[in-house]
Amino acid sequence: MSTLDLLRAALGELVETDAASLETARADRSGHAAPGRPLAIVHAESVEDVQAVMRIATQTRTPVVVRGAGTGLAGAANGGDGEIVLSMLRMTAIHEIRADDLLAVVEPGIINADLNAVLAEHGLWWAPDPASRDISTVGGNIATGAGGLLCAKYGVVRDAVLGLDLVISDGRLLHLGHRSVKGVTGLDLTSLVIGSEGTLGVVVSATLKLRRLVEGTTCTVTAMFPDVRSAAAASSAVTASGAQPAIMELMDAASLAAVAALLDLPAPASSSAQLTIQTDGPAAIAEAAQIAEILTAHHGVTQVSHDRVEGERMLAIRRSMHPAMQKLGTTLIEDVSVPRSAMPAMFDEIARIEKEFSITIPTVAHAGDGNLHPNFIFEGEEPPAVIWAAADELFRAAIALGGTLTGEHGIGTLKSRWLADEIGQDQWQLQRQITRVFDPLGILNPGKVFASDA
Amino acid sequence: MSTLDLLRAALGELVETDAASLETARADRSGHAAPGRPLAIVHAESVEDVQAVMRIATQTRTPVVVRGAGTGLAGAANGGDGEIVLSMLRMTAIHEIRADDLLAVVEPGIINADLNAVLAEHGLWWAPDPASRDISTVGGNIATGAGGLLCAKYGVVRDAVLGLDLVISDGRLLHLGHRSVKGVTGLDLTSLVIGSEGTLGVVVSATLKLRRLVEGTTCTVTAMFPDVRSAAAASSAVTASGAQPAIMELMDAASLAAVAALLDLPAPASSSAQLTIQTDGPAAIAEAAQIAEILTAHHGVTQVSHDRVEGERMLAIRRSMHPAMQKLGTTLIEDVSVPRSAMPAMFDEIARIEKEFSITIPTVAHAGDGNLHPNFIFEGEEPPAVIWAAADELFRAAIALGGTLTGEHGIGTLKSRWLADEIGQDQWQLQRQITRVFDPLGILNPGKVFASDA
Repeated sequence: MSTLDLLRAALGELVETDAASLETARADRSGHAAPGRPLAIVHAESVEDVQAVMRIATQTRTPVVVRGAGTGLAGAANGGDGEIVLSMLRMTAIHEIRADDLLAVVEPGIINADLNAVLAEHGLWWAPDPASRDISTVGGNIATGAGGLLCAKYGVVRDAVLGLDLVISDGRLLHLGHRSVKGVTGLDLTSLVIGSEGTLGVVVSATLKLRRLVEGTTCTVTAMFPDVRSAAAASSAVTASGAQPAIMELMDAASLAAVAALLDLPAPASSSAQLTIQTDGPAAIAEAAQIAEILTAHHGVTQVSHDRVEGERMLAIRRSMHPAMQKLGTTLIEDVSVPRSAMPAMFDEIARIEKEFSITIPTVAHAGDGNLHPNFIFEGEEPPAVIWAAADELFRAAIALGGTLTGEHGIGTLKSRWLADEIGQDQWQLQRQITRVFDPLGILNPGKVFASDA
Repeated sequence: MSTLDLLRAALGELVETDAASLETARADRSGHAAPGRPLAIVHAESVEDVQAVMRIATQTRTPVVVRGAGTGLAGAANGGDGEIVLSMLRMTAIHEIRADDLLAVVEPGIINADLNAVLAEHGLWWAPDPASRDISTVGGNIATGAGGLLCAKYGVVRDAVLGLDLVISDGRLLHLGHRSVKGVTGLDLTSLVIGSEGTLGVVVSATLKLRRLVEGTTCTVTAMFPDVRSAAAASSAVTASGAQPAIMELMDAASLAAVAALLDLPAPASSSAQLTIQTDGPAAIAEAAQIAEILTAHHGVTQVSHDRVEGERMLAIRRSMHPAMQKLGTTLIEDVSVPRSAMPAMFDEIARIEKEFSITIPTVAHAGDGNLHPNFIFEGEEPPAVIWAAADELFRAAIALGGTLTGEHGIGTLKSRWLADEIGQDQWQLQRQITRVFDPLGILNPGKVFASDA
């Protein structure tokens, strides 16, 4: 029997081969599409379904691409020619919520915001908040090791997962990690799977580490600066002061202009830049006042609000960044991360690259943790060579400043050619060998992350 | 040339073969000693020294046991017959302290408390605080994935390391992880190495994630309860209330009696148990009041202090546990960890095992995170069969309650025979294969963690 026949015999109507659906499964929100068309999409509804798919894939040596909501920005979940796309979107169950143990056990297909809506009824919260939280799945967040806006204070996915159930390439189910706060039994495979982008196995259940909802006032501080460097320096000064904002977002002039155009707001001054900062918890009001003072001392025109709704309105400008970019053309959203003190220098490098390549690179940053999202805008589907050349300069600059290619989006297909530049050839080979322990035949997301013998 | 000759030729006076020193290197604070005597101790002073040792070990297929201060409690750093003990105690340099980036780069041999004394001058703090912090090394803390008293609020070692430099078995040096807050480039090998107990390589440098020293009042609340179950229930109620104590320690009647005898204090009531709780940060006073109310409602006789010095005096009773046990005989300190809500049930299990085996098991717990340290006391060097039988029951009870064999001490030699019981045969084999990617010849800490083909 063909692979498709085997899948249909085992999984019946869960196997989809509709042309339009297959076409959709080729691409994610990066805009990048895999070459060719996948063999089928299997809509797993249970752990057993996932195991059945992996057994057939092993038997037939067919590549499997695990996919959530397809909101990735690095092409890691794109299904290409002859591949099985294993969709987790129907596995959305919440098995358990324990307020006393601050944990929840969930299936991977649940949308981050949907989970948090349910948790909120229990006064609980799963902290990872990628900008895509309304549309991305918990499983996708785990596969990419997602970050978000609140990371400097509340951590990333790696800090918020206690255990994972993982189906490996031959269909065996492993229980990784713990339900307890502490646990050091053997190797920490839970952490290894977080951010592994579908190369080690299929996450079929996750034991999440929860927080209680933060009580009290949320304060919002915004400040306009004459240029991006002074905004970056002010944000570094906030971090250095010991204040711990929940959110600290930076937008440069090109970003502000694009959002102003989208929202029909007055255009900001030509070189201006903005910081938007939120404080929360018991010290929120005092911290906001302290932060406003620092921003003013750094020549920021500063505004403070203690009203949560007005604060959300002030943050809406930042949250409109992605739609504003999409109005300008196709967008390649980059994701370099540097030590916080290197933020001003990284903005200098971006300005240099803009000049060198005669392009504009609208940039926003999670300034509290040194994670920048420079946006490359172009016409058409695939980035032209000049964009990749500029991105190449960007990556090298970030690495030279002690930073990394990717703070939260992952390597996927789009950054695999730079992976060895950052981690070195020896580590590249060793990481690749580790994937082979989980997946001896190389059928799990081949061509992603470890794309070639670098 | 013999292995010893090769070591001497390459490393000269760094190679020690003094009989008394070799004898010391056979054991750690667990009291357990490796069989036979190691070949030599090499006192590495540089990364190059470590690489030279590993190259010779690979060439001659000689096992290498990496060792810090020897304060482990699972036998993981004990050097046995024909093995090279690679001591990191001379590699104590602090390469870098960055208050702006909240990181430090240090060599592994530095003592935890010594590092924190230096960091305190900068208003900084590395949060992991194992009870051994005055005598254990940062490298040992990393190798075991150490915890401590402050973990529920401030995290464990896994939460406090950004990157590691690792020398693998053939002498190659790898740079793992990042200097930035976020980073998802390839597999998270930094996390994999944390808690790997010398089976993957030799940590020669660590980039640590720091916190600012916590300002403000520290409040201490103690409460005496009629029995251990009510103390455990009260601690669960504190966690469930949303209060976030920095420290929450529980001592049972046998522990209190032993400490009272050691410190010449009045003997407590025969079945009593005690909670000692500290709050810190901006909400410390309010939280202490809230916690005192909960403890009183749970029939605790409660006392609150806002004085830091008096608080330390109240905690001294807990900190005297280890010397108090040593006065009773040889001690096997166990380390099970369960979900916080299962703490009362775990104490019931301990009471059952005490009855079944007619022994007393003095137990303290990091009650804020469900980590219990039951102490088995015996005469002589090695635990008799009855102690291991009781420990076996203890481990099975913890696993049945959703817990783990070891919250913070590690597997080492003492718990390797139970590892597969917890993680399963499939995962045991897979973890073992991962160690082989780093160490194809099996020369890194053989017989530890993955002791046999389970």
